[in-house]
Amino acid sequence: ASSVTMYGRMDVGYESAHHDGKSVTQDNGTANTNMSRFGIKGQEDLGNGLAATFKLEGRFNGDTGSYAKDMFDRESTVGLKGNFGSVRFGRATAALENGLGDFVIGERALGFSNYASATRHSNSAFYDYSMGGLTAGANVSTKGGDSGNATEGTGKIGYGLYAKYSANNFGLGAAYQRDGVALTKEWGVAASYTFNPVTLGASYADQKADGTSTHTKTINAFVSGAVTSNDTVYAQYNRVKVTNASAVTAYGLGYNHALSKRTSVYGEVARNKRTSLTGELVSGYDYSVAMRHAF
Amino acid sequence: ASSVTMYGRMDVGYESAHHDGKSVTQDNGTANTNMSRFGIKGQEDLGNGLAATFKLEGRFNGDTGSYAKDMFDRESTVGLKGNFGSVRFGRATAALENGLGDFVIGERALGFSNYASATRHSNSAFYDYSMGGLTAGANVSTKGGDSGNATEGTGKIGYGLYAKYSANNFGLGAAYQRDGVALTKEWGVAASYTFNPVTLGASYADQKADGTSTHTKTINAFVSGAVTSNDTVYAQYNRVKVTNASAVTAYGLGYNHALSKRTSVYGEVARNKRTSLTGELVSGYDYSVAMRHAF
Amino acid sequence: ASSVTMYGRMDVGYESAHHDGKSVTQDNGTANTNMSRFGIKGQEDLGNGLAATFKLEGRFNGDTGSYAKDMFDRESTVGLKGNFGSVRFGRATAALENGLGDFVIGERALGFSNYASATRHSNSAFYDYSMGGLTAGANVSTKGGDSGNATEGTGKIGYGLYAKYSANNFGLGAAYQRDGVALTKEWGVAASYTFNPVTLGASYADQKADGTSTHTKTINAFVSGAVTSNDTVYAQYNRVKVTNASAVTAYGLGYNHALSKRTSVYGEVARNKRTSLTGELVSGYDYSVAMRHAF
Repeated sequence: ASSVTMYGRMDVGYESAHHDGKSVTQDNGTANTNMSRFGIKGQEDLGNGLAATFKLEGRFNGDTGSYAKDMFDRESTVGLKGNFGSVRFGRATAALENGLGDFVIGERALGFSNYASATRHSNSAFYDYSMGGLTAGANVSTKGGDSGNATEGTGKIGYGLYAKYSANNFGLGAAYQRDGVALTKEWGVAASYTFNPVTLGASYADQKADGTSTHTKTINAFVSGAVTSNDTVYAQYNRVKVTNASAVTAYGLGYNHALSKRTSVYGEVARNKRTSLTGELVSGYDYSVAMRHAF
Repeated sequence: ASSVTMYGRMDVGYESAHHDGKSVTQDNGTANTNMSRFGIKGQEDLGNGLAATFKLEGRFNGDTGSYAKDMFDRESTVGLKGNFGSVRFGRATAALENGLGDFVIGERALGFSNYASATRHSNSAFYDYSMGGLTAGANVSTKGGDSGNATEGTGKIGYGLYAKYSANNFGLGAAYQRDGVALTKEWGVAASYTFNPVTLGASYADQKADGTSTHTKTINAFVSGAVTSNDTVYAQYNRVKVTNASAVTAYGLGYNHALSKRTSVYGEVARNKRTSLTGELVSGYDYSVAMRHAF
Repeated sequence: ASSVTMYGRMDVGYESAHHDGKSVTQDNGTANTNMSRFGIKGQEDLGNGLAATFKLEGRFNGDTGSYAKDMFDRESTVGLKGNFGSVRFGRATAALENGLGDFVIGERALGFSNYASATRHSNSAFYDYSMGGLTAGANVSTKGGDSGNATEGTGKIGYGLYAKYSANNFGLGAAYQRDGVALTKEWGVAASYTFNPVTLGASYADQKADGTSTHTKTINAFVSGAVTSNDTVYAQYNRVKVTNASAVTAYGLGYNHALSKRTSVYGEVARNKRTSLTGELVSGYDYSVAMRHAF
């Protein structure tokens, strides 16, 4: 037993999705971004600037209390950190999330992703290094990475590299990731600039599946502005295009009112269009209101 | 991260049920009332008498350590409280449990329910207000309430209203609840009076299923008396009658010895009779001994 | 709510098993010994040297964050302790693990067991008493013990007895256990001696299934030596022989480097041979490297 910090986030709201002429009402949808979570973390000083670290973080559906994924699905790592950076072993966010994850802004109706690969790798070793505004890292995973023990022996090696820079109102990100179970490769770049109180950002990612010429290209852009010290308005555009196949274009507006640094209420509306190969166009819209509290 | 309180309850015992001529031995039965549980809760002061709150509470089988229900099945809420009362979003106890739940007393062999509707609603907004001895509240739930995301789009709106009063040795409760998945409506009333060291209580609830004339009527009554400052003896009577169908009558005795405010041992015996439409009468008896510890 | 201690262990590593001509790569295998775990425990002083206790401990796969077993699978108990010893109710380690569990030393590639019965009993009452270097105890379980509620009504009574002694560099252990679902009986003995910096140990256990003359005999032996104050090297031999059936012999070497009392890295290599009735001999080898951190 030792000092252990328990922390988490509750995010519960109402979300209504109207797609393809059908109306669907849902609380707390399936998008990863708006999941509630709880975690346990700690570290032990080993001397000489070295420390042992652990982090266990899971997600659940705040509206029903049920698991969204297995136990500590968001992170399950043990490792060391020191002057050399940090090394962790287990399951954690993979390269594309690490490099590009900061360059999206929506949550529920606007809960888009700006890349197509696995968000996390299991059975992996992670190395990260930070210096000034620069953070870079790599991970390599036996068993494919994205699906863990379930695909033991069936996947190839998964791995990734990323770098991101954030200083002087300027942000940059880049990542490359190989998923060994889905057998895809993806690279992506992102940039943002803040001229107070407004931030502009955009990213582009291109995923290719092994043995095909099909690319999944994801474009995302956002603008965010502080209206008051507690209020933020934001807009996001997202387009996912698969070569010779479907395209989904979505965009929308969000508004966040902070009750404190840890608690806020927010609302979002989004519109999306789907184009199939045969030229059909199906439109829809989503909206959501929610309350979020970090503990 | 912030101040988070972890709490819970362990309740493990031996329970023997003899029904319909068969003898069944079980530890920690399936009745909700005797489940072990653990929880995490906290609140953040937002100023002006306003606070953000969260509560996560799950149940498990104390005798095997396994889950009885999914993760935070007993409560999963985030909300605000202030002079206006409290509002919570997520999953929590519904109106009949809030209004009538205090008017039953048994745990294992005597673990009866005094209403027939869902104990909790998911995907719900809850409003509660207390003033003096009076507490009243309402909740409304998308997706039917009782079953959460599993029944998305298939249920109707679920909702409920309750009020209860407790002061001057007098207790009153009333509730109305609509379950949107099971498609039932139920109302109930309850009352209790304490002339020290004895408390008497009773409740009645009537549930009707949509589109039928069938009613499920639940009558419950109890008497509880303090024998010493650490010992309580109690008796309970329970009858559930379905129109033109089965009836179950059960009653029994319980004894609780407190080792402290948080720890106790208790034993219960119950006898029950079941009457089927064809006139058959099947009798049985249950008994249980258990230890309970709150942490 | 009261003082609750949260604790646990992360153990993540790389493990490669080469058996029967096949190569299998895995992180954090299925052996119980190397599972990561977390727990909650506490106690309440009841006066007169009496205390109420509870302990909840579960395991998970550190490399993926997923559950290995249900919730609090390692221990789920509530009980009392005092001058009389301790009594606990629920699920905990059974007699053979209590008596012989200290006399094995490996973790992953060397993660052998020195007995064949269930490691834990559910639905059980446990009594333990310690005096000086001696610890002895017994447990009895309704419903067979090893499988808990899943086998309600199908198992016979399970029970066990154990004693162990540890003092003056000398260790002894003995246990007898009846599993009521698998319907087996097993007895075992173990001994160890430390002449600093080296410890030698060995154990023998014999399990018999009801209604057959088949015995499963497990022999285990180990030697462990401190190379420096932070480094330990160890070797282990293990043989499991079933009468008129297969035999598995395994042995190997391990090395543990402690970064602190709570954190270490370790590596193991093992070789094993399997002999079938028809005389076939299949050989294989395993190796593992891992990091472990207790919190």
